[in-house]
Amino acid sequence: MLGRVNHIALAVPDLGRAVEQYRSMLGASVTEPEALPEHGVRVVFVTLSNTKVELLEPLGADSPISAFLAKNPAGGMHHICYEVDDILSARDSLVAAGGRVLGDGNPKTGAHGKPVLFLHPKDFFGTLIELEQV
Amino acid sequence: MLGRVNHIALAVPDLGRAVEQYRSMLGASVTEPEALPEHGVRVVFVTLSNTKVELLEPLGADSPISAFLAKNPAGGMHHICYEVDDILSARDSLVAAGGRVLGDGNPKTGAHGKPVLFLHPKDFFGTLIELEQV
Repeated sequence: MLGRVNHIALAVPDLGRAVEQYRSMLGASVTEPEALPEHGVRVVFVTLSNTKVELLEPLGADSPISAFLAKNPAGGMHHICYEVDDILSARDSLVAAGGRVLGDGNPKTGAHGKPVLFLHPKDFFGTLIELEQV
Repeated sequence: MLGRVNHIALAVPDLGRAVEQYRSMLGASVTEPEALPEHGVRVVFVTLSNTKVELLEPLGADSPISAFLAKNPAGGMHHICYEVDDILSARDSLVAAGGRVLGDGNPKTGAHGKPVLFLHPKDFFGTLIELEQV
């Protein structure tokens, strides 16, 4: 059921400073910041050869990462996104095995314009998992 | 400087239960548990097509992940490991840019038998980064 790791998302309090650190200290290749107001975040991607790391900064008052940053003011690792071929089938087999999907249980359109779901971190030992249909 | 994401490491309080959840809820392909007493952990790998997720459980009294689990009893995302071609050159350019390496600053032999270093999470917005020379 699980395909590639699409991205690993890290929440940061200051995207500009984070980009500067990744570039200067790690020589990382980082994309230009992009505002995604419908998701309440500004993002950049650190481009690696096999996957990408998404750096997320809150955008607007109701950002979904504001609560995380209130608990972790320095920032931290926020979620892992796995690709799946068929998100409804993935959801149904997860739910049949006792797993929980966040929200109303239906896929939303994610940051890449594709259907996504988030899984309850309590089912995966404190790790928030995003599934993205590719 | 940064190559592939070698793995994403997640600390869990109970490796057996974690393996069961990843298999039953996500249909994940998970390796058999391996004890690494010299690193104070038992590990399995969730095998993805482009990288792997390492699930870590403490082993012994001085496990390096015990403090993390004391703060995060349910478990959580622990670190990201990036591959580098030359770990000494990576370290030197990081330090020249003001970055900090954990421990005595010299590479240790990591879980895969290769030289590794850990970078100070305060330099990377709360994310612990491992560099592994491949």
